Amino acid sequence: MRLHTAPDHGVVGQVATAISSAGGVVTAIDVVDSMAERLVLDVTCSAGDADHAKQLETAVDALDGVEVYKVSDRTFLLHIGGKIEVSSKVPLRNRDDLSMAYTPGVGRVSMALAENPDDVRRLTVKGNSVAVVTDGSAVLGLGNIGPGAAMPVMEGKAALFKRFADIDAWPICLASQDTDEIVKAVEMIAPGFGGINLEDIAAPRCFEIERRLRESLDIPVFHDDQHGTAIVVLAALTNALRVVQKDLTSARVVVSGAGAAGTAIVTLLLAAGLSDVVVVDREGALCEGDDSLSPAHTTLASQTNPRKVTGGLQDVLVGADVFIGVSAPGILKPEWIGDMAEKPVVFALANPDPEVDPGEAEKYAAVVASGRSDYPNQINNVLAFPGVFRGLLDARAHEITIDMLLRAATAIALVVKDEELNPNFIIPTVFNMDVPKAVAAAIRGTNPAPTGSAAD
Amino acid sequence: MRLHTAPDHGVVGQVATAISSAGGVVTAIDVVDSMAERLVLDVTCSAGDADHAKQLETAVDALDGVEVYKVSDRTFLLHIGGKIEVSSKVPLRNRDDLSMAYTPGVGRVSMALAENPDDVRRLTVKGNSVAVVTDGSAVLGLGNIGPGAAMPVMEGKAALFKRFADIDAWPICLASQDTDEIVKAVEMIAPGFGGINLEDIAAPRCFEIERRLRESLDIPVFHDDQHGTAIVVLAALTNALRVVQKDLTSARVVVSGAGAAGTAIVTLLLAAGLSDVVVVDREGALCEGDDSLSPAHTTLASQTNPRKVTGGLQDVLVGADVFIGVSAPGILKPEWIGDMAEKPVVFALANPDPEVDPGEAEKYAAVVASGRSDYPNQINNVLAFPGVFRGLLDARAHEITIDMLLRAATAIALVVKDEELNPNFIIPTVFNMDVPKAVAAAIRGTNPAPTGSAAD
Repeated sequence: MRLHTAPDHGVVGQVATAISSAGGVVTAIDVVDSMAERLVLDVTCSAGDADHAKQLETAVDALDGVEVYKVSDRTFLLHIGGKIEVSSKVPLRNRDDLSMAYTPGVGRVSMALAENPDDVRRLTVKGNSVAVVTDGSAVLGLGNIGPGAAMPVMEGKAALFKRFADIDAWPICLASQDTDEIVKAVEMIAPGFGGINLEDIAAPRCFEIERRLRESLDIPVFHDDQHGTAIVVLAALTNALRVVQKDLTSARVVVSGAGAAGTAIVTLLLAAGLSDVVVVDREGALCEGDDSLSPAHTTLASQTNPRKVTGGLQDVLVGADVFIGVSAPGILKPEWIGDMAEKPVVFALANPDPEVDPGEAEKYAAVVASGRSDYPNQINNVLAFPGVFRGLLDARAHEITIDMLLRAATAIALVVKDEELNPNFIIPTVFNMDVPKAVAAAIRGTNPAPTGSAAD
Repeated sequence: MRLHTAPDHGVVGQVATAISSAGGVVTAIDVVDSMAERLVLDVTCSAGDADHAKQLETAVDALDGVEVYKVSDRTFLLHIGGKIEVSSKVPLRNRDDLSMAYTPGVGRVSMALAENPDDVRRLTVKGNSVAVVTDGSAVLGLGNIGPGAAMPVMEGKAALFKRFADIDAWPICLASQDTDEIVKAVEMIAPGFGGINLEDIAAPRCFEIERRLRESLDIPVFHDDQHGTAIVVLAALTNALRVVQKDLTSARVVVSGAGAAGTAIVTLLLAAGLSDVVVVDREGALCEGDDSLSPAHTTLASQTNPRKVTGGLQDVLVGADVFIGVSAPGILKPEWIGDMAEKPVVFALANPDPEVDPGEAEKYAAVVASGRSDYPNQINNVLAFPGVFRGLLDARAHEITIDMLLRAATAIALVVKDEELNPNFIIPTVFNMDVPKAVAAAIRGTNPAPTGSAAD
């Protein structure tokens, strides 16, 4: 925050007090310029969120003789010029370098690849690259904001790919939300990439896009919002049930939300051997024989709800061991958790605001997880996708199988050792570099490396 | 070259002698392993080209008691794992970093961009990124080798973009050679890029692709094989005519080759004010009224050949001031140059083998240029495209105009100062960093920075 103030150095203390009183944390106050008629101050402080930042600004502006000239936001400053860049791995100092990396030397490499297409992955960045593809139709909790506005998220994802798995990912933000056009565009750009990470594409379009791309492409296609989430949920559920000493396969699970994430979670839970999964959406429990369901929901209903229960979320929760929410904020009343089976497990994963406040849920549940980083047990896709693609690229895989997803979930769960496991620690932290290594090994089908210390 | 030899250290000298005798240059011979039954030697040496390397290998293998175990090629070694990578520009050390670069902080940036789409270039890598797009149909001199085999060339280009203009370029190698599909694919990926560099797409398809993309996209579209070449040719021609003291606009120019490069060169020469340009292809001079011409060639014919000359290259060259070849190896007999006007200028740009050997051409011509780096006056697109896109991105340009191309050519020509100019130095070297700066300034329309020393 840059302030213009009256030329009275006492104002510095007043500014600091005003920010503190409003709940802000002052990091530094620098006097940038001191003139006869005014002072220029740069104040660096932390706020809880954007609304709080606005409150701090108002509090400072209300001071006598103080004018807020400009407010810079650390997050926006960080984004100027973008968050990723392309680097050359080869030196280009002189003609000799140029003649190897570019013409004429590169011609021999291209000729060799024309003869042996399998070597494209070995001799080009294809072997280590992933396209992060979106149409901008379901970005974070923001909805359909379009491809341009989705760029910062896709770039962030690319930065995470590099940070956690040394993968070269590039954002591909598509100018259409038509299924056929998206499929065609991804097929067109596929030759240069070793994998496709679909991201923030709305349901049900995302299901068809993924299915068709898996059929047509010879590189793996992964929709992170579906399969990344499913892997981490299954890993966390495995450990949550270890904590409450219940058997995974016989657990009764209620999944709230029948969109992309909900569908993928259900599919993976069934593949993991669970038999009693009930899916609830706004209309209530999905149940076989309900003619009003969409095709996607009809399929889901046919695979789930073996006891043919009906009713809303509150009804269905009675006696359930596990609640998994990937739906909407605040739809789960904390006291409903009291009607679940003994030692209930609650995953409230709606973003940014969960189905139930994790602090409230803890009063009733034995284990609580959410998508939030300010509570224990954060369910974060960062635990899955970097290692998944690391493993796929290492194996030069042509596809991704449900067995791989199951192995990845097990690998994440096993990173938490028995002696570490407790209701507040069912899932490793995102900075534990054992996780991507273990996931990659699981995807490759090689034995996971023995886990060392929790932090790397 | 790794050798297995008899356990006789005298063999080292024999190997060195054999390579030298065969014309190779030995850099190093390392004894990797010395056992009772054999020695293992690593020999590093330089060869003139791939054929010569094979000769050296044969010469060494022929030695008594020496077996060539493995030959590694420096150029291939350089390509393993690809030549470019994605780097994160932001630190991702802790939760605080993550929450700014990714969720939840990135959500505020995306929301801001949804409201102000113009800021996408400022707050994402779009502002500095270029898609290097090919269909693999006309790669270098190699022809239609397809998108996968084209990757090393496009990666090399991306590395050059970084090296010479700090631009983040990513290769997009398309899985189709259909004009409609290529246009659609580029339109689809355009939201994430600040410019499109079309590369190695065969004529005449490339003309329509470029024209349609220029109409539909709000970012500049540049076909390097056309416009990059044309800029550098015009720059070199400007300086060649300074050397021979002829006027640019009244010069009689013969262009051999009516493909992508030839067409673009002619268009730019006409825009620069030249009035007497004759285009020759395999069938002879293009002349208005010839019904056998293709639509593209009919257009070219209508714009050129004001004296309506006919005949083959030899006929048309009589009395011409300038020959510009972008056609096929060896089609220009050196002695034909003797029939040109006084102090003829010859640009033999076919790659990798020029229309006439530059050494032979020098016997007749006042100024000779070629695409080869082992003769003076190399016409190299690296002089143009990095600066062109640097200028376009800096200006957040929505399109590229022919005036920009003319200014870029003038800027390159002016980097060579009067006192430096001579028949063997009409064009700056590719490592002169004044060039991309001057070109970028010319594209932006700002005054070029005063040029300093020739090398930066």
